Amino acid sequence: MSLTRIRHRALHGKVMSAAQAAGFIRDGMTVGMSGFTRAGDCKAVPEALAARAAHDPLHITLITGASLGHDTDRLLAEAGVLARRLPFQVDRSLRRKINAGEVMFIDQHLSETVEQLRSHHLAPIDVAVIEAVAITETGGIVPTTSVGNSAQFAQQARQVIVEINLSMPEALEGLHDIYVPQDRPARQPVPLTSPAQRIGQPFIAVDPSRIAAIVFTDKPDSPSNVLPPDDETRAIAGHINRFLMDEVHAGRMPATLHPLQAGIGTIANAVLQGFEDSDLQGLTMYSEVLQDSAIALLDSGKLAFASAASMTLSEPVYRRVIENLDFYRSRLVLRPQEISNLPEIVRRFGIIALNTALEFDIYGNVNSTHVNGTHMMNGIGGSGDFARNAHLSIFVSKSVARDGDISSVVPMVPHVDHTEHDVDVLVTEMGLADLRGLAPRERALRVIEHCAHPDYRADLKDYFQRACRRAGGQTPHLLDEAYSWHTRYARTQTMRRA
Amino acid sequence: MSLTRIRHRALHGKVMSAAQAAGFIRDGMTVGMSGFTRAGDCKAVPEALAARAAHDPLHITLITGASLGHDTDRLLAEAGVLARRLPFQVDRSLRRKINAGEVMFIDQHLSETVEQLRSHHLAPIDVAVIEAVAITETGGIVPTTSVGNSAQFAQQARQVIVEINLSMPEALEGLHDIYVPQDRPARQPVPLTSPAQRIGQPFIAVDPSRIAAIVFTDKPDSPSNVLPPDDETRAIAGHINRFLMDEVHAGRMPATLHPLQAGIGTIANAVLQGFEDSDLQGLTMYSEVLQDSAIALLDSGKLAFASAASMTLSEPVYRRVIENLDFYRSRLVLRPQEISNLPEIVRRFGIIALNTALEFDIYGNVNSTHVNGTHMMNGIGGSGDFARNAHLSIFVSKSVARDGDISSVVPMVPHVDHTEHDVDVLVTEMGLADLRGLAPRERALRVIEHCAHPDYRADLKDYFQRACRRAGGQTPHLLDEAYSWHTRYARTQTMRRA
Ligand SMILES: CC(C)(COP(=O)(O)OP(=O)(O)OC[C@H]1O[C@@H](n2cnc3c(N)ncnc32)[C@H](O)[C@@H]1OP(=O)(O)O)[C@@H](O)C(=O)NCCC(=O)NCCS
Ligand SMILES: CC(C)(COP(=O)(O)OP(=O)(O)OC[C@H]1O[C@@H](n2cnc3c(N)ncnc32)[C@H](O)[C@@H]1OP(=O)(O)O)[C@@H](O)C(=O)NCCC(=O)NCCS
Repeated sequence: MSLTRIRHRALHGKVMSAAQAAGFIRDGMTVGMSGFTRAGDCKAVPEALAARAAHDPLHITLITGASLGHDTDRLLAEAGVLARRLPFQVDRSLRRKINAGEVMFIDQHLSETVEQLRSHHLAPIDVAVIEAVAITETGGIVPTTSVGNSAQFAQQARQVIVEINLSMPEALEGLHDIYVPQDRPARQPVPLTSPAQRIGQPFIAVDPSRIAAIVFTDKPDSPSNVLPPDDETRAIAGHINRFLMDEVHAGRMPATLHPLQAGIGTIANAVLQGFEDSDLQGLTMYSEVLQDSAIALLDSGKLAFASAASMTLSEPVYRRVIENLDFYRSRLVLRPQEISNLPEIVRRFGIIALNTALEFDIYGNVNSTHVNGTHMMNGIGGSGDFARNAHLSIFVSKSVARDGDISSVVPMVPHVDHTEHDVDVLVTEMGLADLRGLAPRERALRVIEHCAHPDYRADLKDYFQRACRRAGGQTPHLLDEAYSWHTRYARTQTMRRA
Repeated sequence: MSLTRIRHRALHGKVMSAAQAAGFIRDGMTVGMSGFTRAGDCKAVPEALAARAAHDPLHITLITGASLGHDTDRLLAEAGVLARRLPFQVDRSLRRKINAGEVMFIDQHLSETVEQLRSHHLAPIDVAVIEAVAITETGGIVPTTSVGNSAQFAQQARQVIVEINLSMPEALEGLHDIYVPQDRPARQPVPLTSPAQRIGQPFIAVDPSRIAAIVFTDKPDSPSNVLPPDDETRAIAGHINRFLMDEVHAGRMPATLHPLQAGIGTIANAVLQGFEDSDLQGLTMYSEVLQDSAIALLDSGKLAFASAASMTLSEPVYRRVIENLDFYRSRLVLRPQEISNLPEIVRRFGIIALNTALEFDIYGNVNSTHVNGTHMMNGIGGSGDFARNAHLSIFVSKSVARDGDISSVVPMVPHVDHTEHDVDVLVTEMGLADLRGLAPRERALRVIEHCAHPDYRADLKDYFQRACRRAGGQTPHLLDEAYSWHTRYARTQTMRRA
C-alpha cells in the first residue's frame, strides 16, 4: 500500500480489498469501467466480481471504453455476470455468448457512448470502476494508460471505485488532457485546433464524496498481441505509402500529411510500421489507439506528436514507454475517446483514417464486424467516427482469408458498417483502388482490378457484368445471387466454385 | 433590365444574353450551379445550354447544391449534356439515364461536396452559375432562396456567371449568412452556438474580376409539389408528437425540444405540420430545407426560428414569404449547406433529425435511395449528415407502398444508407419503435411489432425466429432468403406470398 498516491487525505479511510469494493456492485446495476483496448482497465474489482458471482449470482450492464485485458470479459461472461455489454469487445468467450444471443451486445460508434449517457438514452451509471495512477489533492483521478470513457463514467456515477495501480509510475501524471463538453444547450465548440494542443485538465475532476472505495493493485496491462508484418501487410503498406507520396506531389497535402488515425489490429499496425521506410517526415497522429508502430515512429522522429485515447503495446514497448516517460511526455497526449474520436475534430483536422475491413464489396461498402453477415467479430469501434469525417478514408484488408477460401472482395457485403459514401480508398496486397469522385459502376471495375485476388477476379467481373445487363441501376446487383459466395462458403468451406 | 441591382458599376458591361453566357461553358468542363431542392436555381443559362447542345454537343460534370427546378435536369439530361452529376437529383428523366448507366451519378452526403472540392478530390469548378438578387458594391453576390454550395462554387470557379432574378425582391438581402471554413491546417471551430446566430456575411464574397457574365431573368422558383397530409402521415405525426412529449416529461429534453431537422418529401412535411396540433412551443429548426410546414409553424408562432440552406415552397406560401420578408427576416436564416449540415454543429446542438426511408429492416438499417437495391430514387441527400450526429435520429415511412404490395419493413434492406448505429427511432403509421440502447435481436421484435403492417408481421417474425434458430449470431439472418421478399416482388409484383 502506498497512501502517498492518495493525496486527498480524507480518502485514506476508503481503502479496502477488491472483494469489499466489488460489494458496491449489485444485481441489475449499470457499471462503467475504465479500459480501452487492454490499456488502463481495472484489474482487481472485475476479478473479484466474477469470483463472487459463483456463490452470489448477479447480472449487470457493463460499459467500458473499448475492449478489456486480463481475460476480464471472459471471466465475467463465463461467470454469467454480463446481461448487457457495450460498446466494444474482442474476447472469444464473450463473443460466443453474444452470438448465441445470451449477452445483449450494443455495438456503438465509440465517440457516442458518453453522449448517450449524457442525454439519458442509456440508463445512468450506478458504479464506476476506474484505474488510476493517483488521486490528487482535490480528489481528482489521474488515469493510467487509457482515458476512454472514464471521465464521464466517474462524473456521472453515484459511486466511484478507484483502483490505484502501483505498477504504473507516478510520472504518467501530466500525460492526460481531460476535456468534458458542456451540457446542451450551453455546449461550446471544442477549442482544439492541432493534435498537440491541451485544452483540459490532467485529471478527472470528481466530487471526492462520491469515491466509495479505493483498491490497490500492481498488475501491468495485458500486452497487445499483434502479429509482426508479413508479405501481404508489407505490400499493403507499400501501396499506401506510394499513394500518400503521390498526394503530396500532386499538391493535395503538405509533406507532413494531415494527422493520421490508424485502427486496431495487425494490418493497421503493419501499415504504420511501413511509414518507417518512407520519405515522410514530421507526421502527427490523432488517433484512438496507439500501437507499437506509433511508438517506433516517435522514437525514429518520423512522428512529431501522437494524440489518442489509449496505448496498447507489446511487453517490451510498454516497458520502454513506462521507463522513458520524460521523452514521451512532450510527444504524447491521452484524451477522452469522445474527444479523440469527435466528428467535429476529425473533420476540422482533415484526418487520414486507416481502418481494417473484414471484407468489402465491389461498390466499396465495408463490413468490419459481422462474419458471414451474422456473427459479431469485435465491433465497429471508432472506425465510423473517423471514416465518415476524414479527409481520406482508407480501408485495408488482405485480399483473401482462410488460406484463400474466403475472398475479402465480394459481390455484396452481408453487413454494412461503412457505406460507399464513407470510403475513399480500398487497399489489399494486390493493389490500391482510389474511388474518389467515381460512380458505383466505375468503382466496381477499379475495385475488382486493383484489389481482388486473381483467383476471384473473373467471377467478380462476371457478376458485375451480368448485374449490369440483367438488373441495371445505379448499383447493379443480382439479389438472388448477391450472397451466393457466402452461402457457398457456409456449405462447402470455400468461396471457390466447384 | 435593372442595372441598379448591379451595385458594382464596373460590372455593368458584363450583362449579356443567356445564350452568350452559356458560351463560357465548354465540353469537358466541371460546372457548379446554384440551386437546392428547386430553390434558387439558375433559370436561363442551363436552358440556353441545353438548346445549344442540339447543334453543338457537349458533355459536362454538373455539381449543384441539391435538386433543381424548372425541369433543368430533364432538359440537360435529354440534351445529352450530363456526363457526370452530383450530389443529388429528383428528376424522372435524369433518374432513368442514371439507372441505365448513361449518366455517372455520385450520390453524396450534402455537407461533403464542397469539402471534396476544397481538398481537390473532385476536379475544380471551371464555371459557376449562381442566381442572385443583386451584386453588392464590392462585387459580392447576394443569393436568392437557397445558398446551397454557391459560396464555394463562386469562390473556386475560374469564371462566374451571375443570373440576377428580378422576380426575387431585393428585400431578400440580409436573409443569408455566408460563413466559409478556413483551409486546413488553419481551420478554426465554426463559432455557431445557436440556430439564430449569424457568423458570416450577407453575401458571397468574390473577386469581381472573375465575374464573366451577368444575365437577367424573371422566373420564380418552381413550386414544390408535396402532397397534403393523409391518414397515414397524420398517424405518423401523432406517434412522433407523443414520443417527443414523453421525452420532455421524462426530463430528457426541454419543453422547447432541441433544434429540429426535417427531410424532404411528403411525409416529413406532414410530420412537421402535425406539430401544429401539439402542446410544443418555442421550437427552433436547424435544417437543410424548409418546406411549407416550417413557414406555417413560424406563422403560428410555434416555431421561434428556422435556419436552413434553402426554402422550397408551394406557390401560395412562396408568395406569402416573398411579400412579408420583414416578418420572416428576424425568424429565418439561409446558410451554406456545409454549415446547415455540418456534423460539428449537428452534434453540438443535439439536433432531432427526422428523415424518410424507402424501407428499413428488422434490425434498423435504412435504405433511403435504392429501389430494389439497384435503382436510384433521389440520393442520400443530407440525411446522413444529420442521422449520424443527431441527439435523436428518427426515420419515418409508410408501412407499405404500392397499394400494400411492398412492405417497407423487410428482413434485410438490399442497400444500406444508414446503419443501425445511426437510427434511434423508426415510425410508420402503425406505431413507433424506440430502439435506443437495444441489441439487434431486441430491435427486431420491437420493429416488427410496432412498425410492420399486420399483413406482413407474421412473416417477418417467422423469418426472425428461423434466423435465430438456424444462423444465430449478433444479427441473425438467413442469407439465402434475406432478399426473397424483393425477388418475389420483382417476379410477382407483390411481396405477399401466393
Ligand atoms: C476487421 C478486424 C477484425 C481485422 O483484424 P486484424 O487483426 O487486423 O486482421 P486479420 O487479418 O488478422 O483478421 C482477423 C480475423 O478475421 C478473419 N477474417 C478476415 N477476413 C475475413 C472474412 N472476409 N471473413 C471471415 N473472416 C475473416 C481472419 O481469418 C482472422 O481470423 P482468426 O482471428 O481466427 O485468425 C479488426 O480490424 C476489427 O475488429 N475492426 C473493427 C473495429 C475497428 O475498425 N476499429 C478501428 C478503430 S480502433
Ligand atoms: C425516401 C424518399 C424517396 C421518400 O419520399 P416521400 O415523398 O416522402 O415519400 P413517398 O411515400 O411519397 O414515396 C416516394 C416514392 O417512393 C415509392 N416507395 C416508397 N416506399 C418504397 C419501397 N419500399 N420500395 C419501392 N418504392 C417505394 C413510393 O411508392 C413513391 O413512388 P411514386 O413517386 O412513384 O409514387 C425521399 O424522402 C428521399 O429521397 N429521401 C432521401 C434523401 C433525404 O432523406 N434527404 C433528407 C435530407 S433533405
